[in-house]
Order: sequence, then structure tokens, then C-alpha cells
Amino acid sequence: MADAPSARVISPPGGVASAEWLAGGSGGADRLARLLPAALRGMAAGTAERGGPVPAGGPAAVAAALVQSAAGLPRHGVGAEQALEELSALLAAGSADPADPACAAHLHCPPLAVSVAADAVASALNPSMDSWDQAPVASEIEREFTTGIARLCYPDAARPDAVITSGGTESNLLGLLLARESAVTRPVCGANSHHSVARAAWLLGLPAPVVVPCVDDRMVPSALAEALAPLGAQAVVVATAGTTNTGRIDPLPEIAEICRRTGARLHVDAAYGGLALCSETLRSRVAGLELADSVALDLHKFGWQPVAAGVFAAREETDLQALTVRAEYLNADDDTEAGLPDLLGRSLRTSRRPDAFRMAVTLRALGTSGIGALVERCCANASGVHTMVDDHPALRSWGAPELSTVVFRPMTADELPGTAGDDLVAQVRRTLLEDGTAVIGRGALPTGPDGEAQLWLKLTLLHPHAQPADYRALLDAVATVAADLRTSVTRESPVAS
Amino acid sequence: MADAPSARVISPPGGVASAEWLAGGSGGADRLARLLPAALRGMAAGTAERGGPVPAGGPAAVAAALVQSAAGLPRHGVGAEQALEELSALLAAGSADPADPACAAHLHCPPLAVSVAADAVASALNPSMDSWDQAPVASEIEREFTTGIARLCYPDAARPDAVITSGGTESNLLGLLLARESAVTRPVCGANSHHSVARAAWLLGLPAPVVVPCVDDRMVPSALAEALAPLGAQAVVVATAGTTNTGRIDPLPEIAEICRRTGARLHVDAAYGGLALCSETLRSRVAGLELADSVALDLHKFGWQPVAAGVFAAREETDLQALTVRAEYLNADDDTEAGLPDLLGRSLRTSRRPDAFRMAVTLRALGTSGIGALVERCCANASGVHTMVDDHPALRSWGAPELSTVVFRPMTADELPGTAGDDLVAQVRRTLLEDGTAVIGRGALPTGPDGEAQLWLKLTLLHPHAQPADYRALLDAVATVAADLRTSVTRESPVAS
Repeated sequence: MADAPSARVISPPGGVASAEWLAGGSGGADRLARLLPAALRGMAAGTAERGGPVPAGGPAAVAAALVQSAAGLPRHGVGAEQALEELSALLAAGSADPADPACAAHLHCPPLAVSVAADAVASALNPSMDSWDQAPVASEIEREFTTGIARLCYPDAARPDAVITSGGTESNLLGLLLARESAVTRPVCGANSHHSVARAAWLLGLPAPVVVPCVDDRMVPSALAEALAPLGAQAVVVATAGTTNTGRIDPLPEIAEICRRTGARLHVDAAYGGLALCSETLRSRVAGLELADSVALDLHKFGWQPVAAGVFAAREETDLQALTVRAEYLNADDDTEAGLPDLLGRSLRTSRRPDAFRMAVTLRALGTSGIGALVERCCANASGVHTMVDDHPALRSWGAPELSTVVFRPMTADELPGTAGDDLVAQVRRTLLEDGTAVIGRGALPTGPDGEAQLWLKLTLLHPHAQPADYRALLDAVATVAADLRTSVTRESPVAS
Repeated sequence: MADAPSARVISPPGGVASAEWLAGGSGGADRLARLLPAALRGMAAGTAERGGPVPAGGPAAVAAALVQSAAGLPRHGVGAEQALEELSALLAAGSADPADPACAAHLHCPPLAVSVAADAVASALNPSMDSWDQAPVASEIEREFTTGIARLCYPDAARPDAVITSGGTESNLLGLLLARESAVTRPVCGANSHHSVARAAWLLGLPAPVVVPCVDDRMVPSALAEALAPLGAQAVVVATAGTTNTGRIDPLPEIAEICRRTGARLHVDAAYGGLALCSETLRSRVAGLELADSVALDLHKFGWQPVAAGVFAAREETDLQALTVRAEYLNADDDTEAGLPDLLGRSLRTSRRPDAFRMAVTLRALGTSGIGALVERCCANASGVHTMVDDHPALRSWGAPELSTVVFRPMTADELPGTAGDDLVAQVRRTLLEDGTAVIGRGALPTGPDGEAQLWLKLTLLHPHAQPADYRALLDAVATVAADLRTSVTRESPVAS
């Protein structure tokens, strides 16, 4: 091969000199450096314009702002700088920004700048993770990262493995799919499980999950044992380590033991709680995770990545062979035999963004100890805010947080009959959202006198630099708005008082 | 609500002053501006180190570079700047860069800088598209963009709609899923269809697709009519507008007419060819697209977006109701009734990145006319390179390109018996890849004497600023390497000559 032409013969040819629009190639970094200031200028201006956690005025005001900006599919363009500055300003002004502590409804984290900067490089080079010749080193970086995550979940397993997903929803889908492919076709999950479990069963053509009762938002082991009795090894149990409503963690060791005894498979949805593994002090809360056949993780929750940053870990790498697929143009047998790594079977997607790159850069920057420290801060904040709720004259708490979720309810809602209390809770949330004060969450929990569902407010605390005191005004705002609404309810329908 | 606290009471509180790690919030743009130079410095250094379209040395050399860099899950971090600069350099040095014309194997485009810059803002603000209170204006921008795309596909339909996907694979999955949910459960596709069609059927628990024969990589209408005869309205036909192997476009009007007559549904995988709709001169090539029930598009092919940038368009917005799902914490009925838009049913995912934002910014910057012009350049390049192949003494062409794919074969491969010719073709590709000269594609087509598969090389031309002359050295390199390999094959097994 001495006569093979060198790379330099072919590139960069003259035609590329006009490539002023491209992010990659020679000069790509300079072109990005010239364009990014317009985007960041717009972002800063829009953030200042918003001023708070979310734009005021609700959907109508936000939609009106867009009409004025005339986005859409124009026939002719305005150029890169103008488009970037204007639309970045629009996006920032109209966003619910989780970097503001008062934006605390969902498992929706404020991303780390280091991850965002890394993502820009990944976007510019655009490795696509479906074949080695589109992602030579990106695939190696991903493999090293997923191996690391697999070992974090399964420190004692001989051959654990993990793949990147678009989030907890796809990871739960994989949990049921791998079960289905080993002829385990009866999903069983707690009443506390995420809606994606039932949706995955529907997508895969499996029966709807058998739902196991919960107490205090945790699966009841004896009820699980009863549900499994007629199903045995046909069942795949989905337990939860960090529920969406309350952050509660199912009793994993007991659940794993019941699964072992009955021969059922076990998948744990640890999309929320999984990264507690990075903290020496919190790791024990998710003990038992290593007993699951598979685990869903999500670094766009604890992990402070922009969406998407899902991981699916399996205790046995051979389980992932269910994803194997052949496509002549991507992973021909002779290419694989010749040593080109086969990436196609690492995902249900084909083209795939290298989300592992920014996760790997983040871990390199902070270390697992740094991520663990941020998880600890959020959990400590939740404890602190829970205490503030308990001490508050107008609020009551649902229970002590296990992770970083604080669930509470204005006491005044309890004074209203029927569903009027729930209506009030829902209206408190919408009022704070629509006037731009705060973004807080909601969840139905079976706390009524006869176990019927009641609506609660929740704060999902993922701001790693906030302190409990940052949430005091928010709690007071909830109480004030609830009192105002109660007054108007009483005025409109005196019978309710 | 005169007494409701203003946003300013709650934020920004003192605790956030220490938020030096976050990309969002007040000061987020400044923090990004301080970090991005380290990332871009690394990217520029790595790109210069690589020098060509792909790192030389193949998988072993690339993996060795990673071992030296020690990525993975370290317990302690090195800080943001160092992690960014080192790993960005590693990624750039080890990438197959489609901004180099000699990286032309796949539907793997060089992204536009404007899209990459917009994506950084989206990552920093991190809207998640599963509920309005996580993505107020991002959801409006997405809605306007998807409406625009739906109208591009279906200019005369009364109520078209579109949703964002992770790519052609997910869009094809949606095509079969929506069929399944209307009790249409027998997939039928051409032999030229993408592997994701069969994989979607498998995922959804549907029967494997009935495969319709092709001639010249196009579905044969009479064969489709025959296949549909026993299936009728139970069938969902998947046609292709731009095959992965050759860029051929199925005869859509004839196929649509057969589907209409038999009552079959029609989904068109236009992941490659769909954006030809943006070009006045090329639009006629995908005529008939508007007759399909649904269409897969992919702006990370023509569209010059980083992965992911898929769109799924449906002629009837009501078809998308199959995706409807309820989750109390995201789209409770009373919130929807109170006017909060319900986003959850716009995707199979839950948390979801606002990929529509960078697509909308790109369209605002270039207009559909700008995108159309880039599509035209790539198709013109393919015609020019095809002519060069035809004129080349050592290469032969498979046929004239319909989009931007050039399929060819070194003539010397035809001189070898049995599978030796295919082996030589495969080795030419791997040799050029592993010595860092070029990234070219491969595909099997039924061109053997008795219609058996033969291996061809392909160039998928997505570099919008290259010219045909930029590919001359690459064609010569293919011929040279093929001749070298032929000599060694002849020397090793004289009988083969």
C-alpha cells in the first residue's frame, strides 16, 4: 500500500474554501467562534427580558410573542447572525429556566455549562453512532463511558454492559423489550410507576401491566408476591428507584428476593435515583439496584445534562443481543470480521447523536465525586425545604423526602368539600405559572379519607447551587395565592365554606 | 391577584450567585462564552492533527488514542476547561468529518454552523418538550415549524400535521404504529427499503413485512399490486423516496394509485429525498409524496442539521391521536381545559430535546430557497461525479444518480471469479478508510449474471460546497487501490487471474 494516496492529496480541495457555512472541517471552530456571540447575545437579552423563572402571561402571551417574530418556513432567509440573535432571544425570553430555583416542577435540570460546550463540539463534528466509519473515536468514548456506568450499577457482575438511550422512557422500553425477547411477556409494575412502563407495553404489543398496590408511594412486597404467584417466570417486574410524584424508592432488596424466588425478571426504573450511586453517603438508598436484570438511568435528571442523556444498563451483556440487527451498508459481516466494530446493535435508533460525549466530558470535569456532591446538595435542600413546610402555618407536608422532591399542600385546600380542594391546588399551581412567579409540579396521591386520590403540589429540587432559603418566598407565595383563591371560592359559592 | 408576589421577589436569590457551573439563568451566556473557547481550541487542534477526512490506522489506532486519554468515570475531576479542551481535541482528531468531501459514505451531513450555534442555546436553556411548563415558547416554535413542514409535504391537505422524531427510523416506526392503531397490521415494503421498516414491525409485534421486488432499486408497481391482492385494506405499504443504497425514488404516483384502489395505507420513507421539496427544480422528482398517508423526513440528511432532526408528517392530523397519552403530572385534563397545551402526545418519548429550535433557526437563516439551493448543488455534484466515473478507464457506474448518490465499482473486480470481486470491493473500501484517505460507502445490488447480489461502492454527496473536481483524486485512489489489491490477489492465488 506504499502507493496509496495520502489524505492530503484529496483534501482540503479548492471547493471547500467556500464552505463558510459549515461547522466542521478546517476553519470550522473559527466559524463557530464568529457565530456563537450572536446566539449568546440573544440568549442574554432574552433571559434579562424574562427576569424570572418563566414568562408571565401564560400560553396566550407566549404564542403572541411568536407571531410577532414570524418564525416558520420562510421562502427566503435573513442570514445566520440575525436568525440566531432574534430566535435565541425569543427562546430565552419564553423559556421556563431551571437555572432559576423557582422553576422546580419537574425532573428538568439546569444543565452544566461544561456539558453544553461539549455538546457544541459534538454537534459540529456530527458523529453518528450507527457505524464506526461515522464515529470512530466517538464510539470508543461511548463504549468507555457506558462500561463505566455499567460498572457503577453492577460493581460485582462479571459482564455488565450499558447502552445510551433518549431517556427513561426508552430505557424502560428496552427493559420490557429484552424481557419480551427472552419470552417474558407479562409486565408487572407498581401503582407508583412512570406512565412510560404501560406505554412501552402498548408499543411492544404486550398485555397492559399488572399493577401492584403501593403504600406511601412504595410498592408493597407482599402484594407483589401475590401478583407474581400465578405468573412466575413469565413476569417482568418494573420497580422504581425515585418515583416521579414523590421521589420514593421501592424496597429493592425485598423485591429482588421475591423475583429471584419466583423466577421473574426485574427491571428497575432508576431514572431519577440512580445517580445517587455517585454519592458515598446516599448510595445506600438505592441498595439492591445491583440485583436487577436491568436498570434505567437518566443523566438529564441528577447528572445535569441537557436532554437527552438516558442510559440502560444490563447485568448480563448477552441480554443486549436482542438488539442485534444487520444492515449491509452499516455492519456487513465481512467488515465486522475485518475488525470494524459493530455499533448498530447498540440502539433501537439508526442515526444517533453522541450524547455520551458530553456526559464523558462532564464526568471528566467533575468526577463521580463531583456529581455525587451535587446530588447531596439537592437532597439536603429538599430536607431543608421539607422542614420549612412542616414549620409553615399554612402548608402541610406529605412526608419526608427520600431524594429531592418535596410534596405539600396548602391547608386551606383541606377545608373545601369534595373536589374543590383539588381544584384549589390545581389553580394555585396554574396561577403561579401564568403570572410568571414559579413553576411548581403536581401529583395525585391516594391520601383521601377512603384512599381516594388527592392533588398535591411538589417541588423537584435539581438546582445544585440553591439553598433552602431560596425557596422560602415560593412557599409563602403558595400560601398567599391559596388564601386569595379560597376567599374568592367562598365568595362565589358560600356553601363551600 | 393584585397581591400575588412578583417573579422578582423570588429570584434571583442569593444562593444562585454561586451557580458558576450552570449554563442557564442570569449570567449563563457569559459562563458559556468563557468556556466555549476551550472547547473550540481543542476542536481546532484535533482537526488539524487529523489533517484528512478520518484518522488513519483504523480501530486499533483510534482505541489506542483513547486509552492514553483515560476517559471513563474517574472519581475526581480535572475541571471544566481541561476536560473540554482535551476531550474536544480527542473527538476532533478521531472523527470522520463530513465537512471533508472525502468523507462521503453515508447520509451523514456536515452540519451548518448556524444550527450548531442555535443548538448550544437550546442545550443551555434545556426546554423539555413533554409539557408546556417546561417548554413554553419552545413548544410554540416547534408547532410552527412542524406545521410548516406538514404544509410543505401536503400543500393541498385540509388538516396535515407533523411531529419531531429522532430520525427516519423513528418516523418509519410511527408510520407502522399509526397503521397498527387503525387495525392495519400487514407491512408491505420494497426490497429496497431501509432496514428500519422490518425492525419497526418486529418492535411493534407485527408480522415481518411482505417484500416486493425491485428493478433498478425501485419498487415494481405490478409486483406491489400482486402482493396487495390478498391483503387489501389490511396492508400498510412503505415506499421509499431516496433509497439508502442508490438514492432511487419509487414510482410514487403509481404506488399511491394502487394503494387507493386496494384500500391499503401508504407511508413514504422520504428521509433522504424529502427535502427536494425545497427546490423548485427538483420537487417534481418526489411528486406523489402528497398522496401518502404519512411521510418520514430527515433534516440531518439534506437539511444539514446535526443528528437528530427527524420529522414525521401525516396528511390527517387525527391520525396522530394514536399517540395520545395521559400523565397526571404532565397533561392533566383540568390543565388542558384551562388552556395549557398538551404536548405529551406529540412523541413516543417523554423528556425530549427541542431539536425543532435549531431547524427553525436554520430555515429562518437560509429560507427554504437556501436549503433547496444546497440540495441542488449536491445533486449536481453527483451528476458531475457520475460523468467522471463513466469516463474513468478503471471504474464503471451502476447508473445515473436520481439524488446525490453515485454508485460504482472498480472494473478489475469484474475480472475475479465467484465472490472474489466482492471481496476486492470490500477491501478497497476498508483500505481507504483505514489509511485515512477516504470514507466511502458500500451496498449490495442484484446485478450479478443471474440477479445475485454484487457489492458496489457508493459516494453519498452531502457536502454542499464541494465541486465534482473535489472527488477526482478519490476516484483515482479507488482505482489505484483496486489495482494494487488485484495484483496481490493474483499473486496469492494465480488461479483467480
